[in-house]
Amino acid sequence: MSASKEQPLAGLRVIDLTRALAGPYATLLLAGLGAEVIKVEDPRHGDLARENSPYVGRDGVVVQKAHDDDVSISHLSRARGKWGVSLNFKKPGALDVFADLIRDADILVENFASGTADRLGIGYAAAKAINPRLIYCSLSGFGQGVDEGAKAMDVIVQALSGAMYASGGPGEPPVRMGIPIADMLAPVFGVIGILSALEQRHRTGEGQQVDVSMLGALTSFVGIENWRAMRLAGLPRRTGLTVHRLSPFGIFKCRDGHIAIVAAHDPLTIGLFKAMRADDMLADARYATRDARVANAILLEERITEWTSELSVAEAVAALEAEGVPVAPVRYPEDALADPRVVAREETMQIVHPRYETDAELRTVGVPIRFSDAQTGFADRLPVAIGEHNDAVYRDLLGYPPERIAALREAGAI
Amino acid sequence: MSASKEQPLAGLRVIDLTRALAGPYATLLLAGLGAEVIKVEDPRHGDLARENSPYVGRDGVVVQKAHDDDVSISHLSRARGKWGVSLNFKKPGALDVFADLIRDADILVENFASGTADRLGIGYAAAKAINPRLIYCSLSGFGQGVDEGAKAMDVIVQALSGAMYASGGPGEPPVRMGIPIADMLAPVFGVIGILSALEQRHRTGEGQQVDVSMLGALTSFVGIENWRAMRLAGLPRRTGLTVHRLSPFGIFKCRDGHIAIVAAHDPLTIGLFKAMRADDMLADARYATRDARVANAILLEERITEWTSELSVAEAVAALEAEGVPVAPVRYPEDALADPRVVAREETMQIVHPRYETDAELRTVGVPIRFSDAQTGFADRLPVAIGEHNDAVYRDLLGYPPERIAALREAGAI
Repeated sequence: MSASKEQPLAGLRVIDLTRALAGPYATLLLAGLGAEVIKVEDPRHGDLARENSPYVGRDGVVVQKAHDDDVSISHLSRARGKWGVSLNFKKPGALDVFADLIRDADILVENFASGTADRLGIGYAAAKAINPRLIYCSLSGFGQGVDEGAKAMDVIVQALSGAMYASGGPGEPPVRMGIPIADMLAPVFGVIGILSALEQRHRTGEGQQVDVSMLGALTSFVGIENWRAMRLAGLPRRTGLTVHRLSPFGIFKCRDGHIAIVAAHDPLTIGLFKAMRADDMLADARYATRDARVANAILLEERITEWTSELSVAEAVAALEAEGVPVAPVRYPEDALADPRVVAREETMQIVHPRYETDAELRTVGVPIRFSDAQTGFADRLPVAIGEHNDAVYRDLLGYPPERIAALREAGAI
Repeated sequence: MSASKEQPLAGLRVIDLTRALAGPYATLLLAGLGAEVIKVEDPRHGDLARENSPYVGRDGVVVQKAHDDDVSISHLSRARGKWGVSLNFKKPGALDVFADLIRDADILVENFASGTADRLGIGYAAAKAINPRLIYCSLSGFGQGVDEGAKAMDVIVQALSGAMYASGGPGEPPVRMGIPIADMLAPVFGVIGILSALEQRHRTGEGQQVDVSMLGALTSFVGIENWRAMRLAGLPRRTGLTVHRLSPFGIFKCRDGHIAIVAAHDPLTIGLFKAMRADDMLADARYATRDARVANAILLEERITEWTSELSVAEAVAALEAEGVPVAPVRYPEDALADPRVVAREETMQIVHPRYETDAELRTVGVPIRFSDAQTGFADRLPVAIGEHNDAVYRDLLGYPPERIAALREAGAI
């Protein structure tokens, strides 16, 4: 990261108790926006992502971990820019360390199952007593105090949220989204909650608890469509690759892949017919108006597919672009992540092992926000090992003497 | 909305120039967090969502608009809590009104195609000259200055982002997501950008431009998975309804629907076999370890499906819950939106026409964040007609005399 501009959240300190995906992605965004994030891991077994295959290290990308400093690519992505310390809350002295960590912090993020943090003595009530200005963000499956202890994996929440029946066609099975969308939406709303609470703190001087659930975040997204009204109005809800009421609209098959076409409005439909060199369709009453096209959508889609299936994706895209019709190739993730527009804006970023170079260009999630007078990006810092930055934090930041650190280590607390 | 607690963004004013979905959803979130949002619409034709069927009005839910005050359900959802004024930037006097609107505002949000705002004289440079503290958020398809004027519909961005090939199984066509995920992710990151810039403004006193692209927001989400590393490691990337490397994991068919099961770890697999009353599987070396189950995933899934396909969803869920196995019914959106947990937390909310009651319980997106010392929710205010609140804003807020308002109306500016 160059240092030409400051970062928007510079000067804020985050204590990060999270593991799995939802929590670490929240603190990754905060780190990328410039907050100082101190990731706290259990000394015996750290973030779950550390065990995610594949790994990268001195032998490049490998499926099985072979060396101590082989690092899971998931961890390499999610721990960027974070300090890493170890702390076992159940050991003697650990709650004092916790108190010291949060005393001057602005934000804490945790994603234990609801109820667990209180049992460990690090819940919101305990934290507030130490630092009333602290903004304490809890991410959970169903919300604080709801279904305590229930496990909320992404696929469980996807199933409950309605998202799986939002995609796919009539009569088809549900669709499992290949992106862990529930795991990712909760942290995004968690960050909005944290920053909103921060704004309120500028007025009141007080922190508060922010409580976001995976189920609520994803279900709210599903709620953007008017499901009941569509049913009451007799409109189809699962429409698959195309949408008849906007016809021609959707995904069409080419010789070597698929393309997306949007041509509902008259000038676009005419452009499409010109690209198809289908003079007969231009003159055909069945396709002359939007209502007619909706009524004859199946026939219309067959005609379009006859044309596209003879062409390569590149040929079909070029022909439609020449007529000003909105069109795009359906791309594979790996190609999409390398789009020069996305790379230039650091919406995806390269990850590298801090010690070893690889030839493989591994790209991962960035912070998809650009500022005219600030920059995003990650400090050159990553906890390869659990507790990698214990000295930097416990000795240099909290001022602990060497004997206290040794005693904590002896007790298994760090 | 009750008024027991304040809202986190109380006291902030937002000028909302957006139309379509991405922009209005951003300002909806800001309104739900307590900002005062003034929605500015072209007097000739307002937000595109006004024309989205179905509508609700004096005759209940209808597909065709029949009365002046029939309101699109999309508009009813997205315009909640907003003031609505009219303004045509191309008419005489309009840019002076624009200057008056933003002079004391904190935030502006626009989602014109990149380049359009500058051409209209309402771009960031013009706005900053009037109010250097203004945070000016631009949402676009590909980013400011990139592919100027290019149309970025949700389905086009989904195709480009890689998201469509992240779901689905090997050899299957791409999957169009039924939720307009690109239209919704860009505004969520826009709000994070706005609130981050607000935090920076507390330090510097200066506003700035926040620039979020639909393509970047969605592609960054796709980037959470390690696509290239999975390919290099020979791991399958499109796995459909189940995931073999976590087997048994995924979606299974019942007599009357589908369920999600997560039972990768030994104790959960044993619980699953007990629920299945499959004593033979408990003793079978092919299923005894995680590695063995991964190797025999297809056979294992067949055995599970034999069992689930004989049961109703309710029976299968009850049997698995009794053994402590994470399980959930795959629900339809309409049922998911009415989940009591989600309703209680206002993650989905009811919408009503301001003047007419309907029997239909129409539920829509809420603000999926709970605060211990603040509340979310929407003020009892909605622009049914374009320019509904012209007097409240131009006369009462900006202090324009009646003759100036009349002249603007005469000129077609409002």
